[in-house]
Amino acid sequence: MLTGHHLIDGTWTGSDSQLDAPDSPLRGVHQVSEAQIDAAARAARAAFRPYSATSIEARARFLTAIAEEIDARGDQITEAAMAESGLPEARLVGERGRTMGQLRLFADLILADGFPDTRHDAALPDRQPLPRPDLQLTHIPLGPVVVFGASNFPLAFSTAGGDTASALAAGCPVIVKGHPAHPATGELVAQAIEAAVARCEMPKAVFQMVHGAAPATGAGLVQHPEVAAVGFTGSLGAGRALFDLCAARPKPIPFYGELGSINPVFCLPNALETRGAAIGAGWVASLAMGAGQFCTNPGVLIGVKSAGLEALETTVVQAATEAAPQKMLTDRICESYAKAVADLDGKISTLARGQDATGDRMGQPVVFKTDAAAWLATPDLHHEVFGAAGILVACEDEAEMLAVAEALEGQLTATLQLDMPGDAASARALLPVLEERAGRILCNGFPTGVEVCSAMMHGGPYPASTDSRSTSVGTLAIQRWLRPISYQDMPLDLVRPELR
Amino acid sequence: MLTGHHLIDGTWTGSDSQLDAPDSPLRGVHQVSEAQIDAAARAARAAFRPYSATSIEARARFLTAIAEEIDARGDQITEAAMAESGLPEARLVGERGRTMGQLRLFADLILADGFPDTRHDAALPDRQPLPRPDLQLTHIPLGPVVVFGASNFPLAFSTAGGDTASALAAGCPVIVKGHPAHPATGELVAQAIEAAVARCEMPKAVFQMVHGAAPATGAGLVQHPEVAAVGFTGSLGAGRALFDLCAARPKPIPFYGELGSINPVFCLPNALETRGAAIGAGWVASLAMGAGQFCTNPGVLIGVKSAGLEALETTVVQAATEAAPQKMLTDRICESYAKAVADLDGKISTLARGQDATGDRMGQPVVFKTDAAAWLATPDLHHEVFGAAGILVACEDEAEMLAVAEALEGQLTATLQLDMPGDAASARALLPVLEERAGRILCNGFPTGVEVCSAMMHGGPYPASTDSRSTSVGTLAIQRWLRPISYQDMPLDLVRPELR
Repeated sequence: MLTGHHLIDGTWTGSDSQLDAPDSPLRGVHQVSEAQIDAAARAARAAFRPYSATSIEARARFLTAIAEEIDARGDQITEAAMAESGLPEARLVGERGRTMGQLRLFADLILADGFPDTRHDAALPDRQPLPRPDLQLTHIPLGPVVVFGASNFPLAFSTAGGDTASALAAGCPVIVKGHPAHPATGELVAQAIEAAVARCEMPKAVFQMVHGAAPATGAGLVQHPEVAAVGFTGSLGAGRALFDLCAARPKPIPFYGELGSINPVFCLPNALETRGAAIGAGWVASLAMGAGQFCTNPGVLIGVKSAGLEALETTVVQAATEAAPQKMLTDRICESYAKAVADLDGKISTLARGQDATGDRMGQPVVFKTDAAAWLATPDLHHEVFGAAGILVACEDEAEMLAVAEALEGQLTATLQLDMPGDAASARALLPVLEERAGRILCNGFPTGVEVCSAMMHGGPYPASTDSRSTSVGTLAIQRWLRPISYQDMPLDLVRPELR
Repeated sequence: MLTGHHLIDGTWTGSDSQLDAPDSPLRGVHQVSEAQIDAAARAARAAFRPYSATSIEARARFLTAIAEEIDARGDQITEAAMAESGLPEARLVGERGRTMGQLRLFADLILADGFPDTRHDAALPDRQPLPRPDLQLTHIPLGPVVVFGASNFPLAFSTAGGDTASALAAGCPVIVKGHPAHPATGELVAQAIEAAVARCEMPKAVFQMVHGAAPATGAGLVQHPEVAAVGFTGSLGAGRALFDLCAARPKPIPFYGELGSINPVFCLPNALETRGAAIGAGWVASLAMGAGQFCTNPGVLIGVKSAGLEALETTVVQAATEAAPQKMLTDRICESYAKAVADLDGKISTLARGQDATGDRMGQPVVFKTDAAAWLATPDLHHEVFGAAGILVACEDEAEMLAVAEALEGQLTATLQLDMPGDAASARALLPVLEERAGRILCNGFPTGVEVCSAMMHGGPYPASTDSRSTSVGTLAIQRWLRPISYQDMPLDLVRPELR
C-alpha cells in the first residue's frame, strides 16, 4: 500500500538509495536522483501547456475531486499523520477539513466573477495625435511550481495544502517535495490527488511528488530551469538558502517562503488594568496550543509595569505551571526547542515552567520575563523559538513599549490588547510602527488560528516571509502564481476565453 | 540656475568630487558620497510615515501639482533634453505630455473607487466549531523607493517618470538616481517636483535626487537598509547586477528591472501573401524610429520563405537603404551599437544599410538576414541590440517558425502579422508559445508605442524584466509598491480610512 516511492509523470518510481523514516508506517523513503528530478521537472513543463489550457470549470472539478478523494481516505490519513506528527486525532481531523475546504474555496474562487482579473481599454481610432489601439489584459499562470510542505501542518500546508491548491487553481502543475517528517501521510494524500487526476483526465504530471534529503534535493528542484516558482513553509535558515538559490539562477524565479515570526502581543494600559489576568490566561493558552508549533505562536508579550501587568503575570505563572507537556513534531524540532530554551535560560529569568516533560519528543511550555531595556539590548531575544516558549517584556513606560515595537523584525502578526476609548491614543501611536512590520494586526484576540478567507494576509516583511507582497493563506494566494499579459488589437477568436 | 547638486531632504547639496557631464548645459555633476546616500535614505524613511498617512486627495493634488510645475518649465526642459539626449523637439514635447499624463492618470487612479484594493469578511460569531473573526484587508505602501531612470526616455521614464509617479501615488517616498546622460533635464524636473512639494506642504524628503557614477552609486542606494524597493529601466548587465544586490541584502527587497528585449514579429503565411510589402515597410519604420532606441524595438522579423517574404524583403531593402541616420542618446550607446552591428556583420549577411552616418553620435539603420537554422544555432543572435538593427529570419516551414518561437528568451512583446481566418491555425499554434515568453502580444501592428492605460503590461519573463508579475507602464504599475495587510477585529476608529 505504501512504498516510499516518488510519483513522477503518473508512475510510482523508486530510487537506488533510501532514507530512514522515523515514526512512520513507512520503513524508509527513497532518495530522488538528479535524473528523476530532471524527469519530473520536464514532465511538469510538458503538462503545463495542456493543463493551463483546461477550462476553469474542468480545473474547479479537479480541485473538488481532490477534496473528495482525500475525504474518502480520511481515516487512513489521520492514522498515518498521528503516527508521524504526534498531533492528536481531533486536530488532524480538523486540519483535514481545512485542507478540503481550501481546495473547494479555490474551486469556487476560479468559478466566480472576477477571476482572473481582466481589464479592457477599447480602441479610440479617432484620438489625436495618435489613435489608441484596443488593449485587453488578463492573468496567466507562471509555469511549473515546486511546493515545500510544512512539518507543523502535515495536511493543510503540505502535499495538498494551501500552496498546492492555489497553484493548481491558477493553472500551474505542482511538484511537491515530500516532507521527511510525514512521508506516509504525504503518500496517501498524493494517492488521493493521483485518483483525482485520473477521474478528471488531467495530464498525469500536473501533480508529482519526490522524496529526498535536505539541502541537496530542494536545491536540485528549485534550480531546475523548467521550474517557474516555489512555495515554501519552514525555517528561516532553510528558506533563505532556497531563496538565495532562486535569485541566483540564470533566470531568477519567485520564491515565496513563509518563515515564521515571534508575533508580539502589546497590552495597552486600560486593557491591562481591567483584564490583565484574563489576557495572561489567554496568552498562555495560545502559546501552549499544539506545543507552540504554529507560525503565529505569540512568542512575546509586552506591557507597561503596573498593577494590571502584575495581575497578568500571576495568571501567566499559574496557567504556565499547570500546562501539560505535549509531543512535538520531530526529534529534531524537540531538540532545537530544548536548546533554545536552555539558551534563553542563560540570558533572562524564568517566570514559569509547565509540568515536567518526560517521555519521547515532549515539549514543556516555558515563560521567561525580562525588562524592555534588556530585551532591546539583546537581539537574540528577537528571533523565533519554535515551540511553547514565551517572553514577557516589562516596559517602564509607553515610550519604551514603542521602542520595543520599533526594534521588531518583520512579523506575520502583531496583536493589540486594548480597551476603547481609553487605549485609543496608545493604539494610534503603535499602529503605524506595527503596520510597517506585520502582515496582520489583531485586536483583543490571539494570532494562532489563521482564517482561510478573502481578507486574510498570512505573510509579512522579512524575515516573516521572503515576499511581503504575497500571502500563503486565503484567496489572495492565487496571485502568487499568476502574471499579467496584454493583448493588443487581437481578434476575439484568438484571445483567451475570459476575454471574449 | 543649474547646479549639478543633489536634492537631499529639501536642500540642494554638493559634494567634494565631480563628474563630467558631456553634452549637457551643466559643466559637471557632483558625485554623491556614502554619507549623503545615508542621509537621503534616512530622510526618505522619516518622510515615509507622514507621507503614507496623507489623504488620497492630498496625494492626488500633489501628483497634479508636479504635472503643472513640469508644464510651467516646459520650454526649459525641452531645451535641456534636446541638448543632452539628441532627441528632436517634437518627440520631447510629446514625451513631456506623456509624463504629465502619467502623473494625472495616477492621481485619477487613487481617487477612483477600487483603490486601494480592499476586502472584508464579516465576523460569524455563531459559526461552529469556532466563530469567525472580522477580517479586513487593504494594501499599504512598501516604504522608500529608489528609481533609476532610462536614457531613452529622459522625461517619461526618468526623474518624474512612470516609476516615480506610481511610487508617489502608492504612498512611497522616492529617491531618484539621476541619469548621467541627462543631468540638467533631471535637475529641472526635480525643481518642478520640489516646487510641488512646497505648494502641497508635503514632507521635503518625499522626493530626492542624487548623482553619481555607476556601479558604486547604484549599489550604495539599493543596499541601504532603509530602502524598501527599486524601480529600474536599463540594460540587462546593469539591471542584473542591481537585482543580485537587492536579493543578497540581509533583508531582500523587490527589484523591478525593465531590461529590454528583441520583440519578435511573426509574419503568418496569409498576411505575407496579401501584404508582405506593407509589413516590410512598417517594420523598417518601427525599427528605425528614434534611432531604434526603444525597449520595444522589433529587432527580429520571422517568416516562412515564400513570394510574400520576397516582396517583404524588397521593401525592407528599399526602406532601410533610404533610412536616414539619427543622433543616438550617448557616445557610449552609439559605440555599443556600432560594435554590435560589426559583430553581426561577421556572423550573418547584411541585407541593407541606411544612409551613411557621418557626424557625431549618429546611428545608421542596418537590416541583416539569416536562415532560421542559423539563427537557432547562434544564441548570440537572440539578444537585444540597442539601436536600429534588425534581423530577418527566413524559415523553411511553419514548424521551423515554431522552433524559433520556442527558442526565444523572455520578451516585452511579441507580434503576429496575420490575416483572419486563413492564419488562424498558425496563430493558434504560436500563441501558447508566445504567451509563455512575452508580456504583451500584438496583432497587425508594431510594438513601438506603449499605451499608458489600465490594460497595459510592460514587462515580461526574464530577461525582458526581472519580475514578470509586474508592469512599469499603466495603472497596474502601482501594485509594485504595495503590499496587503489584514486587520482582525479592529475597532473602526483605528483602521485606515479606506476600511471605515
